[in-house]
Amino acid sequence: MNYIQQDFSVQFSYKVFFTEFLFSLENRLFNDLLESVHEEGIMRKILFVIDENITIHFPKLGEQIDTYFKDNPYVKLVPEKVIVAGGEIAKNEERFLTTIIDAVNEHGIDRHSYIVGIGGGSVLDLTGYAAAISHRGIKLIRVATTVLSQDDSGVGVKNGVNYKGKKNFLGTFVPPFAVFNDYHFLTTLSDRDWVSGISEAIKVALIKDAAFFDWLEQHAEQLANRDKEATQYMIKRCAELHMDHIAGGDPFEFGSSRPLDFGHWSAHKLEQITDFKVLHGEAVAMGIALDTVYSNLVGSLSETETNRVITLLKTIGLPLSHEYMNLTSADDPIFAGLREFQEHLGGRLTIMLLKSIGTGYEVHELDAQLIMKASQILRNAQESPNQQKQPLSC
Amino acid sequence: MNYIQQDFSVQFSYKVFFTEFLFSLENRLFNDLLESVHEEGIMRKILFVIDENITIHFPKLGEQIDTYFKDNPYVKLVPEKVIVAGGEIAKNEERFLTTIIDAVNEHGIDRHSYIVGIGGGSVLDLTGYAAAISHRGIKLIRVATTVLSQDDSGVGVKNGVNYKGKKNFLGTFVPPFAVFNDYHFLTTLSDRDWVSGISEAIKVALIKDAAFFDWLEQHAEQLANRDKEATQYMIKRCAELHMDHIAGGDPFEFGSSRPLDFGHWSAHKLEQITDFKVLHGEAVAMGIALDTVYSNLVGSLSETETNRVITLLKTIGLPLSHEYMNLTSADDPIFAGLREFQEHLGGRLTIMLLKSIGTGYEVHELDAQLIMKASQILRNAQESPNQQKQPLSC
Ligand SMILES: NC(=O)c1ccc[n+]([C@@H]2O[C@H](COP(=O)([O-])OP(=O)(O)OC[C@H]3O[C@@H](n4cnc5c(N)ncnc54)[C@H](O)[C@@H]3O)[C@@H](O)[C@H]2O)c1
Ligand SMILES: NC(=O)c1ccc[n+]([C@@H]2O[C@H](COP(=O)([O-])OP(=O)(O)OC[C@H]3O[C@@H](n4cnc5c(N)ncnc54)[C@H](O)[C@@H]3O)[C@@H](O)[C@H]2O)c1
Ligand SMILES: [Zn+2]
Ligand SMILES: [Zn+2]
Repeated sequence: MNYIQQDFSVQFSYKVFFTEFLFSLENRLFNDLLESVHEEGIMRKILFVIDENITIHFPKLGEQIDTYFKDNPYVKLVPEKVIVAGGEIAKNEERFLTTIIDAVNEHGIDRHSYIVGIGGGSVLDLTGYAAAISHRGIKLIRVATTVLSQDDSGVGVKNGVNYKGKKNFLGTFVPPFAVFNDYHFLTTLSDRDWVSGISEAIKVALIKDAAFFDWLEQHAEQLANRDKEATQYMIKRCAELHMDHIAGGDPFEFGSSRPLDFGHWSAHKLEQITDFKVLHGEAVAMGIALDTVYSNLVGSLSETETNRVITLLKTIGLPLSHEYMNLTSADDPIFAGLREFQEHLGGRLTIMLLKSIGTGYEVHELDAQLIMKASQILRNAQESPNQQKQPLSC
Repeated sequence: MNYIQQDFSVQFSYKVFFTEFLFSLENRLFNDLLESVHEEGIMRKILFVIDENITIHFPKLGEQIDTYFKDNPYVKLVPEKVIVAGGEIAKNEERFLTTIIDAVNEHGIDRHSYIVGIGGGSVLDLTGYAAAISHRGIKLIRVATTVLSQDDSGVGVKNGVNYKGKKNFLGTFVPPFAVFNDYHFLTTLSDRDWVSGISEAIKVALIKDAAFFDWLEQHAEQLANRDKEATQYMIKRCAELHMDHIAGGDPFEFGSSRPLDFGHWSAHKLEQITDFKVLHGEAVAMGIALDTVYSNLVGSLSETETNRVITLLKTIGLPLSHEYMNLTSADDPIFAGLREFQEHLGGRLTIMLLKSIGTGYEVHELDAQLIMKASQILRNAQESPNQQKQPLSC
């Protein structure tokens, strides 16, 4: 046969920094990072894209950035900041993508310039996508400002926007140049967004790290009460587990297996059919609860461990159920989520379930009747007070 | 300092096949490729995107594809073919991108399905981009139908579309799943497109392989006359040199050096200001001529070798100059190409020049006066008959 074989590998490397007051003049982290990659005689451009809600909660931020980068020897700041709406709308409406791309064009941002996104997971997903497709990839720096983006979405290699209401229909796999998790930004987060970001920590603990799950149980109330030390530990451990998983596995997801999507098949659909009124982390909490109880119903997870998961979710203040999660027929729209999940992933349907806390296993089909049963159990559990000692179901 | 370090590498691998009559039932290449990656019990979908001019020159192609994949055990063919305009318009007008993405959505094409692009470099760049951003990357199979796409653009890792008239402003680096170079498609190519595809072979010979340049000189007339054996050798050797370069160097172009862009800084600009009436390969021929004569003027390339390059270009039937390449002032629009080239690449301006045939070297600035002088020499050379023995210039 007449052919040429091509084989090569590409190395990727980046750091996720944990800090506070990133743009105060005393904090040299950002500057030092730029210095570490500086090439004599070359000034890179740097363009900021900021979540509108961050500009509202931190009205001095623009000024601080200007001051921080004034006379910086490594980068030339584009004075105009690109402000985009915060939340899922940033990923839903094409005009925000266009705004960033037009700014790249207008300000002559090149492949060796930086685009810095500051915001929640939505703004970071949007900014990352715009950076990834402009000039075949501009260096992206993420400044994550929500619990969810600091412990999960902001530290990984994915970006994306929605298309025709479908989550992340357009996107790429591109590692960031660097990530800054600045704890101070979290202080202005609403309680609802705060709590919602904890579900990804519970998720990763459930499939990867029983000891971290124990720790989460022991600190559940502190986490719900926004205790700083506990939250900082949780974010770092969660980020670490996510990053380990990415590096150790299949970073660009060429295979069909996606353990980090535990609990997500129903979550993505729930977000969509509620028009994103249910937050990602809330939907994930319900998805975790559903697949945990289902794991119990198929006999792989013990009743005790099932109850521990439900109790932790409730203690943190995460929801277990929702009117659209009241599944009574195989025609329920949530079930379309299974097909869409497979379509997005491709290949064989692969869903992670739990064997025990800290250990998952994969199945390739789900029993609709048992899913419905699990959803009914969760409707009851949602209403009843926390009953750690009592059996949950059936 | 409080941080997590992330490091990983991603392996890429694909084959470029040289064949004829890819979709005739006797040709099992495509089928065998699908078989080689088949997983028991899983049918992948396969969607075709075809260059409109191919559908005109090969009116039975659609039927042949249907017959080829009928009852195929590995893939389920999407019967509807997506037809997009051939040529640069495919990359210029957003509606073609949208058509492909909407087909992905409508037909439920997932990350483990295949998108097959059949066409010239333009349609392949467009299709590759659509595949790269849909669901964060659908497997792309390229069937290259022009000399240029078979010997250069189709075998590499880049895709892209134009934005606001800027070449490849949007795009990504994503290796294909596989490439088929079917010689039979080339038979219907216009002479102009044929000849134009040879300039990339001259380019890669000049910077990488003096022996291949000798061979090109010896076969120049056969190549211009569309001799099959000579063309097949040229395409394969050129593809090989391109692919070696990609694998051996910096596949995703993280650095500033892009040797394969020899002759391209003025070429991209010339294409744009002539509204793509000058073909990519023609513009590259003029760009090669310009940077070759410039190499001579700065004293790095001998007069003999300079003349050999000019003579080869002329013998093949490639242009040396153009009214817009009549450079007389630093305000000439072509010079803006230098800045845009740098902007697209980023970092330090890095231009390859020639030390000798087969060996390039990099410089970081060009002398506008000498560029103008080179352009005038080429205007004269364009008009004069081939004078292999006579000194070219000044
Ligand atoms: N790329 C990935 O790997 C990945 C992983 C998980 C989730 N995600 C995506 O992340 C998105 C959710 O991100 P999120 O949970 O961070 O929510 P979000 O980005 O939608 O932000 C929630 C709200 O908080 C606001 N906000 C952000 N920072 C704030 C602050 N410091 N103070 C006050 N308000 C602030 C935002 O403007 C928004 O209104 C979803 O689109 C989800 O799909 C991506
Ligand atoms: N991705 C890369 O690495 C890379 C490298 C070099 C060039 N390119 C791009 O490739 C494009 C040029 O590609 P091209 O030179 O193949 O031209 P093209 O794709 O524009 O095709 C030229 C013309 O030939 C027609 N055509 C295609 N195949 C034919 C056939 N077999 N018979 C008859 N007509 C046929 C097309 O419809 C079009 O009208 C440019 O956009 C250039 O920027 C990309
Ligand atoms: Zn998630
Ligand atoms: Zn080229």
